[in-house]
Amino acid sequence: MPNVVIDFLEGRTVEQKREMVKRVTQAISETLNCKPDAVQIIMHEISTEQIAHGGILRCDK
Amino acid sequence: MPNVVIDFLEGRTVEQKREMVKRVTQAISETLNCKPDAVQIIMHEISTEQIAHGGILRCDK
Amino acid sequence: MPNVVIDFLEGRTVEQKREMVKRVTQAISETLNCKPDAVQIIMHEISTEQIAHGGILRCDK
Amino acid sequence: MPNVVIDFLEGRTVEQKREMVKRVTQAISETLNCKPDAVQIIMHEISTEQIAHGGILRCDK
Amino acid sequence: MPNVVIDFLEGRTVEQKREMVKRVTQAISETLNCKPDAVQIIMHEISTEQIAHGGILRCDK
Amino acid sequence: MPNVVIDFLEGRTVEQKREMVKRVTQAISETLNCKPDAVQIIMHEISTEQIAHGGILRCDK
Repeated sequence: MPNVVIDFLEGRTVEQKREMVKRVTQAISETLNCKPDAVQIIMHEISTEQIAHGGILRCDK
Repeated sequence: MPNVVIDFLEGRTVEQKREMVKRVTQAISETLNCKPDAVQIIMHEISTEQIAHGGILRCDK
Repeated sequence: MPNVVIDFLEGRTVEQKREMVKRVTQAISETLNCKPDAVQIIMHEISTEQIAHGGILRCDK
Repeated sequence: MPNVVIDFLEGRTVEQKREMVKRVTQAISETLNCKPDAVQIIMHEISTEQIAHGGILRCDK
Repeated sequence: MPNVVIDFLEGRTVEQKREMVKRVTQAISETLNCKPDAVQIIMHEISTEQIAHGGILRCDK
Repeated sequence: MPNVVIDFLEGRTVEQKREMVKRVTQAISETLNCKPDAVQIIMHEISTEQIAHGGILRCDK
């Protein structure tokens, strides 16, 4: 705790995720005043068929 | 915002999802009084090994 | 199952939620081809301090 | 309801999930005082690229 | 990790939650074969206005 | 999208949340290569009765 769940579109590289979790953890740790080790991040990778805005699937835009 | 996450069993067609997000967005927009563009829907597709009711996996029913 | 979680800004009336869950359930039931009784909806009501877009809290916009 | 979502690392057998949902349902039913049939469990299986603690991906540890 | 989120109706005592997390943690630890310390449980307490089945709010049943 | 949900212990100030969402949004935007405006963050504030590790409620530690 803090516990973070991030849903984003699939297609990112491991290197992008590696950098992302490092920086998000640092941002949360410094602003919410907790140890980096306390921050857990779970990522759900979503296809363009699994996300919609305004009633339209991303794969149809 | 509003932000919607729907978990359902895998096996639906894109056409079903397309119609579903259109109608759910319209229902939320009209009843909660917000713009359709503000409604985001994320879908997680679950296998019958990943859902249980009453302590029994769906794949065992 | 299907299982729906909706996060939206607090301030809606019970009547709005009542109408919303009725219509969302109908929309999901008819498009994903399942019984209305199978649809579960959980609502989380969020304050304007608890949501941000583009890095800015809603209460600051 | 109660509604349970469990994220865990992929690689467990169906037998492990079968036993887990049986026992978690029993534990919740007996302590929160509700019928086992009311307990729904959804499992999300996560790869070691999709989870981080302390800013480091599990696959890098 | 494993990471557990449980939504249930408000009104349970601390004693019920204390017993519940103890037993759920034990159940997960023994069946998924992980250390109890690795199991995190977050509880969201929901009012009867915030949950619906079959398109009907719990507070209307 | 990306869509972020953060559960953390209640008791942070608005100023802490303001700074946190600014920095997390920047971190995600720069590493996942998306526009800041596409990043949505929802915060759930949890009491020490609503979180457990290792089978023990935070309020009991």
